[in-house]
Amino acid sequence: MRELNLLDALWEIITPVDTPGSLGPGDDAAVVNLGSSANTVISVDQTVSGVHADPRFVTPNDFGWRAVTTALSDLAAMGSTPEAVLIGLIFPADTKADDLKALATGADAAAVEAGARIFGGDVSTGPVLTASVTVVGSLRDGRPPVTRSAAEPGDLVGVTGMLGGSAAGLELLRANPSDPDGLRYRRPSARVNEGIALASAGVTSMIDISDGIATDAGHLGRASGARLDVDLMRLPIDPICHRAAESTGADPHVLAATGGEDFELLFTAPAAQVDAIEAAADLSITWVGEVVAGEGGTSLSEAGLSGWQH
Amino acid sequence: MRELNLLDALWEIITPVDTPGSLGPGDDAAVVNLGSSANTVISVDQTVSGVHADPRFVTPNDFGWRAVTTALSDLAAMGSTPEAVLIGLIFPADTKADDLKALATGADAAAVEAGARIFGGDVSTGPVLTASVTVVGSLRDGRPPVTRSAAEPGDLVGVTGMLGGSAAGLELLRANPSDPDGLRYRRPSARVNEGIALASAGVTSMIDISDGIATDAGHLGRASGARLDVDLMRLPIDPICHRAAESTGADPHVLAATGGEDFELLFTAPAAQVDAIEAAADLSITWVGEVVAGEGGTSLSEAGLSGWQH
Repeated sequence: MRELNLLDALWEIITPVDTPGSLGPGDDAAVVNLGSSANTVISVDQTVSGVHADPRFVTPNDFGWRAVTTALSDLAAMGSTPEAVLIGLIFPADTKADDLKALATGADAAAVEAGARIFGGDVSTGPVLTASVTVVGSLRDGRPPVTRSAAEPGDLVGVTGMLGGSAAGLELLRANPSDPDGLRYRRPSARVNEGIALASAGVTSMIDISDGIATDAGHLGRASGARLDVDLMRLPIDPICHRAAESTGADPHVLAATGGEDFELLFTAPAAQVDAIEAAADLSITWVGEVVAGEGGTSLSEAGLSGWQH
Repeated sequence: MRELNLLDALWEIITPVDTPGSLGPGDDAAVVNLGSSANTVISVDQTVSGVHADPRFVTPNDFGWRAVTTALSDLAAMGSTPEAVLIGLIFPADTKADDLKALATGADAAAVEAGARIFGGDVSTGPVLTASVTVVGSLRDGRPPVTRSAAEPGDLVGVTGMLGGSAAGLELLRANPSDPDGLRYRRPSARVNEGIALASAGVTSMIDISDGIATDAGHLGRASGARLDVDLMRLPIDPICHRAAESTGADPHVLAATGGEDFELLFTAPAAQVDAIEAAADLSITWVGEVVAGEGGTSLSEAGLSGWQH
C-alpha cells in the first residue's frame, strides 16, 4: 500500500494528461490518443529479483516469462490486444551470458504466447536483476478501454479462473523446490483472450488480480466510488491451495483471497449481461458478489476475513 | 560496447517483428504499426544512479529530467513527435519522499518541455535509484521514421549543436561541484524540434549522440553498410571544453569526439538537400564529413584520433 500512496502523491505533481481520448495515470494501463481510431494502450511493470520473484525457485527463463506476463496482464485488464513489448533489463556484472539468453527466451515466449513481439529494449549493469517491461496494445474495432472506474451499484462481480494458485505454488516450492505445482508461481498466465472477450461481452469495469482479490476489489471499488461486496465462500479456490494447506497449515480461503499474482481478471457487469458473458468462448467465470453504493472499496463476508475493509 | 554486443546476441534469440510497417529492435526506437496512419514510435532507456548519473552532482530533480531527456532523445533521432512517457522507478527504501517528488517534478518538466505528458509508471523499492523511461511518439503527416540504416555513399555527414559539453561539464563539476557549466552534464536537452525539422528536410539517416560521435558514427555506418569519414578538426566543440581543458588537461577535441550524452543529432543527407537542411528553422548545423563505401562503420581523421576505427 505504501507504494500506491506514493504513486498517488507523485501523480499529483505531474502535469495532467488533457488530450481528448487519452487516459493518464491511475488505471491498469494508460491510453494515448495518437489521432487515429486505433488508440494505443501502454503500461509499464517492474520485476525485481528478490522483491517480486524468489530467485531460489524462479529460473532465468521463468524470470523473463514472469516479467512479461505481469506487464501483459495490465493490457488484459483493459480489454486491449497486446502488440509490442519493450524490456529494460538491469543485471549484475557477473551474470552469465547463458542466463541472460535464457531470460530473453522466456520473455520472448510470453510475448509470442500473447500474440505480441519484443520490439526493443535497453540493458545495463546494476546491483540486482531487474526487468522493466513496457507493453503496447491496441483497442480493436474502435472499442473504448475497460477501466476500473465504471462499476455501478447493482452490477454483479465476477472473476475468471481460480484464485490462490500462485501463493500456494510458492508455499509448495518452499517445502519442495521441485514441486510441479510450483509452476503456478513460477510461470503465471496473463488472461489476454479473456480480457478481450469480457470487454466485448459488456463488462462495466475490470482489473487484474495482482495483489489478491481482497486488495484489488478495493482498488476497483474506490476507483468507481462504490463498494464491492465479495462473498469469500464463493471464491474459486485453486485446488493446489488445499495441497498447500495440508503441508503448511495455511487457510485455503486466505490464500485465495489474499494471494497475489494469479493474474485472473476481476470485473463487474450488469445482470442483463450475465448470459452474454457466460456464453463468451472458453471462459471459466465465477460470480462472487455484487456492487453496492458506498465508498468502502470492498468488503469480504464470512469466516476469518469477515469485516475486512480494504 | 559489451552491452551492445549482448543486446545483439539477445535480439538473435527473440521472435522477429514481421508486421508490415513495423520496425523491431536495432534502431534508436521501434515502430509499431497499429493499423493506422499515425504509427507509434516507442523506446525505453534506463538511468541507473552511479552508472549513468553521478549522484554527487545530479540532484533528484536533475535525475528525473535527465532520465526522461535521455529517452526522448531516441524519439528525436527518428524524427518522431513525443506524446507519452511512462516511468518505472526503483528507489532504496530509505529515500526521502521529498526527493522522489523532486524527481517527479524534474521528469515532468522534461516531458512537458518536449510537448509530451507522463501517462503512468510503476514504483518499487530496490538497492539503487533507477529510472526506466519509456517514450511513445507519433509520426506526423504520414512521414516514415528516419532510421540509422539508410545512409548512402556520397551523403554528407552533419551534426546539430555543439559537442563535448556534457563530458566537459562533468570534468568541471569534479573540480567545483557548483560550477554553473555543470548544467550541461546535469540537465541535457533532447533535440526534439531539430529531429522533426531534419526529418522533414530530407535527411537519409539519423542517430542521437549518446556515446560520443566517434562511437555513434560507427553505429550509423555499420547499420547502413557504409563508412562515415568524420573530420575531427571540423567538430563543433562546445566552448566549455576549453575551460575543462584548462583545468584538467583534457584535450578539447577528445572531449568533443568521445564525450557522450550531448544528445545532439548526427545525420546524413544528399548534397542536394544541404540548402533545405540549412534553411530549416532554428538549426545550428555543422558538416563534419561524408559517407563512403565500405564496412568500417566510421573513421576519424586528424590528430591523436587518426585511424580510430569503431
